[in-house]
Amino acid sequence: MPPIQRVLLVGGTHGNEFTGAYIIKKLDQHPNLVRRANFETVTLLANPKAFAAVRRYIDQDLNRSFRQMDLQDLTRSSYEDIRAREINNLFGANGKTPVNVIVDIHSTTANMGLTVITNEHPFNLQLVTYLQSVNSLVKVYIIPISKESSSLPSICELGCTIEVGAVPQGVLQADLFQQTEALIDTALNYFELYNRGEILLFDNKLTFYRHSGTIDYPRNESGEIQAMIHPQLQFKDYQPLTPGEPIFLTFEGKAIAYEGTSTIYPVFINEAAYYEKGIAMCITQQHQVIV
Amino acid sequence: MPPIQRVLLVGGTHGNEFTGAYIIKKLDQHPNLVRRANFETVTLLANPKAFAAVRRYIDQDLNRSFRQMDLQDLTRSSYEDIRAREINNLFGANGKTPVNVIVDIHSTTANMGLTVITNEHPFNLQLVTYLQSVNSLVKVYIIPISKESSSLPSICELGCTIEVGAVPQGVLQADLFQQTEALIDTALNYFELYNRGEILLFDNKLTFYRHSGTIDYPRNESGEIQAMIHPQLQFKDYQPLTPGEPIFLTFEGKAIAYEGTSTIYPVFINEAAYYEKGIAMCITQQHQVIV
Repeated sequence: MPPIQRVLLVGGTHGNEFTGAYIIKKLDQHPNLVRRANFETVTLLANPKAFAAVRRYIDQDLNRSFRQMDLQDLTRSSYEDIRAREINNLFGANGKTPVNVIVDIHSTTANMGLTVITNEHPFNLQLVTYLQSVNSLVKVYIIPISKESSSLPSICELGCTIEVGAVPQGVLQADLFQQTEALIDTALNYFELYNRGEILLFDNKLTFYRHSGTIDYPRNESGEIQAMIHPQLQFKDYQPLTPGEPIFLTFEGKAIAYEGTSTIYPVFINEAAYYEKGIAMCITQQHQVIV
Repeated sequence: MPPIQRVLLVGGTHGNEFTGAYIIKKLDQHPNLVRRANFETVTLLANPKAFAAVRRYIDQDLNRSFRQMDLQDLTRSSYEDIRAREINNLFGANGKTPVNVIVDIHSTTANMGLTVITNEHPFNLQLVTYLQSVNSLVKVYIIPISKESSSLPSICELGCTIEVGAVPQGVLQADLFQQTEALIDTALNYFELYNRGEILLFDNKLTFYRHSGTIDYPRNESGEIQAMIHPQLQFKDYQPLTPGEPIFLTFEGKAIAYEGTSTIYPVFINEAAYYEKGIAMCITQQHQVIV
């Protein structure tokens, strides 16, 4: 694989996720913080209109607007459709200043701590293994590559999405802000090591969680939710959930149990933006490997 | 004072504060839960359009739209202006079905626990004293009556606003949902006792926090915030803050101290909706009285 020439750091892909947006604004004022000897770092506030409005998006979710066929469909004309094309025309493989790696900074109302989401590309697995070796609190959430992928980082083979939480939408929490900054700094250090051919100098054990599905809230015929995340599950992201344990509590106070047949590790439990997507939590399996 | 004839329970005054909105939806399906022998209880989802859009408001903050001169100004035509007039024409003193008491259910990203906000009307002080005597975790936040008052409950002399948190916007947390329900139940029990003339049967010590001002984030000339709530202050609502203690942390990592001359008790620390209002926290003084 050729060396990394250009890295894109993205924040504000969702306008109400302040951590990433304000990190990008800070880096624009202090570019020295992301300057490295052997590659260029560029920054992007991805959805400035949604950020100004303190909303996830204006017309549609920007982070679901990068499907290849959608990018090529010039009749699509929502604000985020246009913005996705602009971003792809700048930083995509055939763009004006194509990038080799994208790091997209998000936050979540779920208790995901310092999560790094990526796919199973060997470079990405090495990257997240390094991040976890430097900070053992880093959680790695693997979502297999799909042709249907529509996220912003999907325009580039290499990189990851950072998800920090729990933090409400439209709020900055200083501790998570600083932890996210440190994680970005470590990632940039990794790219530098990689360009120097020094990537094997670290402990290579990796614990990760592989995405295997989602669970929706119980809903009535009109689509209205009929239950909440059970208090025993709230904030328990990445912890084992066994069949029979409660996952929901109806408004009338009745517990609903997890009816699967095996232990799962739920993540994105009670993410605000996922109510409308029909997701109460995502399901993962825990794995340990030598990368 | 005459007996209470009609009580209004309100939720969804802010469309992204789910606790109150979903409690109202539940009560509409189970009206027996709020039925009492000696008064009528009515419920209201105050801003249904904002609730459907999962936003605080559509055009302007509904809970700042009830100023008497604004209600009388028929040229005002935003969605919330119209909605405020509708609500006032139904439940205000000269409305179709006027109410004696309003309980308006809100939630906050600040760590306000189970807060009840009201003014110093003797009935309201008795009410919150009762609520605190039943649940010692109840915090009482007193905002003096003002002619400029523009909140929904201000159309009625008696009642209170419930603020529960910390919970993100657009999220339900089952434990806070159930605690809020219990608080409403206790309030309705109080109104029943009041109508029966039995209001003096409880411990009458009250600890409350009186509003005395607000503190904004440090901002640049463009109005952009330059710092975050300091990690040592985050989630410390209702705890004493003494001069010299840190309250902000700049994006560059520099602590900014509280420069007042006396101890204060900050509340609404890091409320998401207050970034745009120029409020990083509200300042209160702690008081203890016999009601």
